[in-house]
Amino acid sequence: MLNLKHLAISSFNENIAYIHRDCSVYKVDDIHSLTKVEIHGGVRPVYAFLQVTDDAKVVKPNELGLNTEAFELINLPEGANISLTLAPPPPSLASVKRKIAGNILSAGEYASVVNDIAGRRYSNMDIASFLVASGSFMTASEVLALTEALVGDNTIRWDNESIVVDHHCFGGVPGNKTDIVITAIVAAYGLPMAKTASRSLTSCAGVADTMSVLANVDFDEDSFKKLVKENRGAIASYHSLSIADASKIVSGVERQIGITQLQHLAASILAIKLAAGVTHLVLDIPVGPQSRIKSTNEAMRLRKLCEYVGDMLSLEIDAVITDGSEPIGCGVGAVLEARDVMKILRNKDDAPQDLLEKSLFLAGRILEFDPKLRGGQGYHVAKEILTSGRALEAMNKIIYAQGKAPQPQLGHLTRDIVATSSGVVESIDNARINKIGVLAGAAQYPGAGLDLLKKVGDRVEQGETLFRIHSVTSTDFAFANSVVDGYTGYEISSGGNKGEF
Amino acid sequence: MLNLKHLAISSFNENIAYIHRDCSVYKVDDIHSLTKVEIHGGVRPVYAFLQVTDDAKVVKPNELGLNTEAFELINLPEGANISLTLAPPPPSLASVKRKIAGNILSAGEYASVVNDIAGRRYSNMDIASFLVASGSFMTASEVLALTEALVGDNTIRWDNESIVVDHHCFGGVPGNKTDIVITAIVAAYGLPMAKTASRSLTSCAGVADTMSVLANVDFDEDSFKKLVKENRGAIASYHSLSIADASKIVSGVERQIGITQLQHLAASILAIKLAAGVTHLVLDIPVGPQSRIKSTNEAMRLRKLCEYVGDMLSLEIDAVITDGSEPIGCGVGAVLEARDVMKILRNKDDAPQDLLEKSLFLAGRILEFDPKLRGGQGYHVAKEILTSGRALEAMNKIIYAQGKAPQPQLGHLTRDIVATSSGVVESIDNARINKIGVLAGAAQYPGAGLDLLKKVGDRVEQGETLFRIHSVTSTDFAFANSVVDGYTGYEISSGGNKGEF
Repeated sequence: MLNLKHLAISSFNENIAYIHRDCSVYKVDDIHSLTKVEIHGGVRPVYAFLQVTDDAKVVKPNELGLNTEAFELINLPEGANISLTLAPPPPSLASVKRKIAGNILSAGEYASVVNDIAGRRYSNMDIASFLVASGSFMTASEVLALTEALVGDNTIRWDNESIVVDHHCFGGVPGNKTDIVITAIVAAYGLPMAKTASRSLTSCAGVADTMSVLANVDFDEDSFKKLVKENRGAIASYHSLSIADASKIVSGVERQIGITQLQHLAASILAIKLAAGVTHLVLDIPVGPQSRIKSTNEAMRLRKLCEYVGDMLSLEIDAVITDGSEPIGCGVGAVLEARDVMKILRNKDDAPQDLLEKSLFLAGRILEFDPKLRGGQGYHVAKEILTSGRALEAMNKIIYAQGKAPQPQLGHLTRDIVATSSGVVESIDNARINKIGVLAGAAQYPGAGLDLLKKVGDRVEQGETLFRIHSVTSTDFAFANSVVDGYTGYEISSGGNKGEF
Repeated sequence: MLNLKHLAISSFNENIAYIHRDCSVYKVDDIHSLTKVEIHGGVRPVYAFLQVTDDAKVVKPNELGLNTEAFELINLPEGANISLTLAPPPPSLASVKRKIAGNILSAGEYASVVNDIAGRRYSNMDIASFLVASGSFMTASEVLALTEALVGDNTIRWDNESIVVDHHCFGGVPGNKTDIVITAIVAAYGLPMAKTASRSLTSCAGVADTMSVLANVDFDEDSFKKLVKENRGAIASYHSLSIADASKIVSGVERQIGITQLQHLAASILAIKLAAGVTHLVLDIPVGPQSRIKSTNEAMRLRKLCEYVGDMLSLEIDAVITDGSEPIGCGVGAVLEARDVMKILRNKDDAPQDLLEKSLFLAGRILEFDPKLRGGQGYHVAKEILTSGRALEAMNKIIYAQGKAPQPQLGHLTRDIVATSSGVVESIDNARINKIGVLAGAAQYPGAGLDLLKKVGDRVEQGETLFRIHSVTSTDFAFANSVVDGYTGYEISSGGNKGEF
């Protein structure tokens, strides 16, 4: 028997067990690193992956160390007696092999795979294999099966609410934080909006990042429910809610390998919304050459897929394909985006009109989920709620209820990127803007990002500022500067001079 | 700047950097676990994957911990000042995405992918993605490109040896340690046999495991060269040689995810042999329903693929397809296999005839690489070398030169599995035998394994022993016992009684 030790290391959803090379009980070779083992002594065995150490300060020869993930699962005090055995691979890995070989998997197989992922019996390598294998080919029925599996056992029930709404954007467009404006409008109207939002995965800021500039976003399910019921709307980081946990593990691996297949994305998003108890969902599918979804055909396939899965699982979906060819709003990065959102809610003259209009359009679609609203009135009602100041009032109530955040400073290291010639902004490359923003530190620091002073169609003079970089640290600032000179992402045409001929 | 700390943890070829959640220099979130970073301060930046800790005993807020893999690469003393930056993903990951999308990659792309794997700029998840994506479809030219890339920069040169031989078996057949007998015969003949062998990956024992029962097998390239030159043969664990390192990383991930595509296997094996400077290679491709290669067609494809790659890279290949329908030899597991090998070399009456004959056949093919030998004479020369005792003499010389091992004990926990009816052994299931052996502890303890007392075609009476389980630990023994009763892997037909009619 070995003594349990907790090593407070967080290893990205993998259970790691640390064993000394001169372990007093088990024979350990280098080759056994990452061997799957079962640790016995708790209520049920815990799967983990071995890492071998030569350092008695990490674990002594008579100890077995568990990282935080595994230690929480085994639920025993430090020093407890534990033993370990080699673990047979989880049987559902046979389904992963079948998928690699090109087969269609059954609903039962998806359920088993997801159950083993949720139980941390898959290494991140196993999950990556599953994702790459299934990503190359999945039928609509398979996506349905995967979605159902990802919903999991713990779902939020809304008791006597007959409609619970949400909105999701498939992303790839910098700025574009319609969600917060929409939540304010819908809450002011009175439909319960249970907005689950994510932290930045590969972009400059997720909705949860931007909202967290204004308010706390981390809640358990009960607090979230209470907030939505009392204020008719709340925005929570879904990472903090104990729902659709397998989906979090899977999307973590997707982020790491940098590959997201549309089928997985659809299954994962719909599973989260279903687990959150949402009944009516507006989906925004932006299309653009440098957006996540590149063609209308691809967007249409995604729309139909989501509609099919929604229909089968009783989730009402209104999916709209929108223009994702350029950034929406001016701010890119949490603090700058929050500034845009508050300008809109405050009806400021310099509020970005594209973000304003898109928010009204989408909020209108959500309001029309209300049977009491006359068809075609959604947009106008949304606009009235915004201009009357009721949306701002609702947002202030939400912020107060969620807990006002100490607003982070905008990054003080700035550089203006100027036009090298006069003309008209012809296009702005989403992917490039996102990259410059991420390098400027936007994914890590809320105060970092880009402020886009010119948008497509704007007239610029040579030397005029196109956008401003904000960084918090000098390292990030140097990074952003080192790439921006190569290609700013802005195309300026001399077409603006045409009027002079 | 942070202070460097070494955490002597071995993480299976991944560079891990441990950072405190309250790091005094960098802002750390949970979501940054496994983020790729570059660590600066050494001669060149070292790529690593972050793990976040709350435990100041792991690393303090002003420290950055590196695991053994990363600490060796950065080559700085503990306490050195280092800084870190977010690392852009290695550009070759774009090729992995192209492969996932179904494209054919160029030789340059394979070179970049392998170079980044060797430089530990891929996480194991990235490698798994590459393997699954490329495994589903690779052209022969792609396998050639991958092989060339895997050979790497550090190769063994044999100066004035015009022929350097080796043998490789594609495996899946328990027992079957022809390699050691072959090495003894070929060395006695005088052709230099530079046998690179592997440790057990998924089987009961690799050739390196079995040889290490008799002698040391861990050498650097110079010692290995010296041993081969002086004794005309040596058997080294290729894990100990600094050649084809990317191939080791890749096969480690393959072992973890339990998936090996034939194209990868071919590329990996041929790359190792080319890196070892082998000029002439006999390949044994066993075919059987429960072997690694299940059909003659599949074996033929593998043979042609290896021949093509060999021809393009000037490696002379003689590939033979053999019967892999049942275990070869009686011992399964390192100590028992070494016993079989030594019985053959000592010309004992009870030496397993199948292993003896197969070894002579394959050794004969290798001897015929010698231009001086008359065609068709290989087998007879091999047999003469064996029966005359010259092979034993050569093996004793090799064992002495490599360093005689303190022979491990055969596992003392035993159980005889007996026939439940009389008849003739109709078939023995390789996969089942392997599984029982692995559960009995064979992959971990040289003394564990199975002793097959009956083989296909043997007459057995009810109650007579079919095979004997040997375990070293009671846990393994219980494991093996728990599965063996369900299905022993032996099929007994009553056909043996036919003669009585």
